[in-house]
Amino acid sequence: MSDYDTETQSNWLSDEDMETVRGRLPIVYINAIPVRTDDLGVVTHVGLLLRIGPDGAANREIVAGRVMYGERVRDAILRHLEKDLGPLALPRIPTSAQPFTVIEYFPNPDITGFHDPRQHAVSLAYVVPVEGDCVPSQDALDLVWLRPDEVVSPTVAAELSPGHEKVVRWALAHCGCLP
Amino acid sequence: MSDYDTETQSNWLSDEDMETVRGRLPIVYINAIPVRTDDLGVVTHVGLLLRIGPDGAANREIVAGRVMYGERVRDAILRHLEKDLGPLALPRIPTSAQPFTVIEYFPNPDITGFHDPRQHAVSLAYVVPVEGDCVPSQDALDLVWLRPDEVVSPTVAAELSPGHEKVVRWALAHCGCLP
Amino acid sequence: MSDYDTETQSNWLSDEDMETVRGRLPIVYINAIPVRTDDLGVVTHVGLLLRIGPDGAANREIVAGRVMYGERVRDAILRHLEKDLGPLALPRIPTSAQPFTVIEYFPNPDITGFHDPRQHAVSLAYVVPVEGDCVPSQDALDLVWLRPDEVVSPTVAAELSPGHEKVVRWALAHCGCLP
Amino acid sequence: MSDYDTETQSNWLSDEDMETVRGRLPIVYINAIPVRTDDLGVVTHVGLLLRIGPDGAANREIVAGRVMYGERVRDAILRHLEKDLGPLALPRIPTSAQPFTVIEYFPNPDITGFHDPRQHAVSLAYVVPVEGDCVPSQDALDLVWLRPDEVVSPTVAAELSPGHEKVVRWALAHCGCLP
Repeated sequence: MSDYDTETQSNWLSDEDMETVRGRLPIVYINAIPVRTDDLGVVTHVGLLLRIGPDGAANREIVAGRVMYGERVRDAILRHLEKDLGPLALPRIPTSAQPFTVIEYFPNPDITGFHDPRQHAVSLAYVVPVEGDCVPSQDALDLVWLRPDEVVSPTVAAELSPGHEKVVRWALAHCGCLP
Repeated sequence: MSDYDTETQSNWLSDEDMETVRGRLPIVYINAIPVRTDDLGVVTHVGLLLRIGPDGAANREIVAGRVMYGERVRDAILRHLEKDLGPLALPRIPTSAQPFTVIEYFPNPDITGFHDPRQHAVSLAYVVPVEGDCVPSQDALDLVWLRPDEVVSPTVAAELSPGHEKVVRWALAHCGCLP
Repeated sequence: MSDYDTETQSNWLSDEDMETVRGRLPIVYINAIPVRTDDLGVVTHVGLLLRIGPDGAANREIVAGRVMYGERVRDAILRHLEKDLGPLALPRIPTSAQPFTVIEYFPNPDITGFHDPRQHAVSLAYVVPVEGDCVPSQDALDLVWLRPDEVVSPTVAAELSPGHEKVVRWALAHCGCLP
Repeated sequence: MSDYDTETQSNWLSDEDMETVRGRLPIVYINAIPVRTDDLGVVTHVGLLLRIGPDGAANREIVAGRVMYGERVRDAILRHLEKDLGPLALPRIPTSAQPFTVIEYFPNPDITGFHDPRQHAVSLAYVVPVEGDCVPSQDALDLVWLRPDEVVSPTVAAELSPGHEKVVRWALAHCGCLP
């Protein structure tokens, strides 16, 4: 789970204070899996971002980020999607706040299997159809749209972080298209 | 729950056979609540059809109908929405087949409180954002878009069938906008 | 998807009539995945039945069966679970009728990937914690309780029908324990 | 939304620090609606706690509280239920982390209609069947079990806080028993 909020979060909490809080309070996150669908709502493609990690390796990722103070969950979904896919992505934010699952990341990798060395994050996960033109913005190198069977192939799975790989499969299961 | 399928169902089962089966087997239905949303997915309006019932009274209704043999649930949602709202309604069929609830209609009104004198119907209920131009087609007199607070007002509630009135409120609860 | 209803369904529809209807109308089913949980609701084991198929081969299966005329979905879940796991299984039927997914079986294997040569079935799928003593009743040879990681192992996966194998994985994804 | 965590939270964050953070970061909460069900999972009664508010007035409430650092959501559900209903309540924590809805409380009452003057809280809401003996513990005066139709009656509704009253109705809608 990357944090792309450095420029914004200072309005709410200084970086230093944020570090302190991260060690003492669960942080609210969203996970958004961008998808293309056909006219019947069937997921045809999943959007994965390509980023260079701190270790210099290229990783594929879904959209993830914090919910800020005063921001609704749906505001956060829109903000993170537009930040990562550009302002013309036209995401269709779900009508219901019911996530398809809740992912719990812990510094201790044994609690849920979802590991975040920096923090305890409680992440609401949504599948979000995206209808417009997408351009990988920010620090992403690329954005690829892959079919469900491609996403779960060993090659692609190996390029996703273990956490994101699992969330994507669970999202596909929820949408009835996990092979 | 009205049945608008007379012309199509004969391809699958004659009207007479359908009547026989209706008394002996649960029938698969869908309920679709058409909604308008803002850019954040918040439901701003609910679409209600106006129809003249067999007793000559005007009733407000949501979209409802059978799932035909060989048809996926999402095909049925699209077919019924286009039949009632016209071919330019541009419904956004959900990516997941998980309904927000399942409504069970019985000839005996005491089992679930949902009454259908003709049949035992098991109806999968979905909220469906509609983005295009809607024209009430078929036998509907009118289509109105009402705010959540208007939909649950005593006046409008009294014009909905008791079954549909309840489904609409449960849909609004699911979307976080039942007042 | 097996049909264990031969003795009961005659009350509603003769076997012959049922065969005719099966070719012309979608049939309502339930899929129930029996699970053992710890005190925190975490799925620790999945219950799989062992049955001898028409071809003489042993297959592992989850609980599945028709919803009868006049029967609520929750009545059907309880009836099928007690039929397969015995009267002392003490299943905890969900408070909500919202299934975790809807599985659509077709005679044509290409529509959804879920294949049932006999019929078009629309199956509401639920995870059901079972707290009591279970004895495989009816025609089942055995009942085994396997950990999530065992269920998805190649050996066990190969013993499940392709349809049931997928439903079990999707159920584990919904419960946050699909490895 | 009351905070019953004063004794525990000091292990994680001092009261003073917590106050500071509350003004700058959304706080993760759970809402748990304790219910009694029949053998088929139908909700027969909802458990409501009676508490004396800061203004001296008696209020009915559902179970609510913070998720602590390092604690899973399901740990928090169990902890708060046992704290409020006693150690013999035997709650059946859901197998899935998918809440039926997410409630967002803000110091500004106009954003979602859910108001918490102290903080921005993101609350995951669950319906939890409770099978054991319940005794109102802690600061609660009483615990009553009311039928769904009683819970939504004007008298009881007026005794619930506006936020909890709405959450309870949404929970009943999810369970198919909102009249």
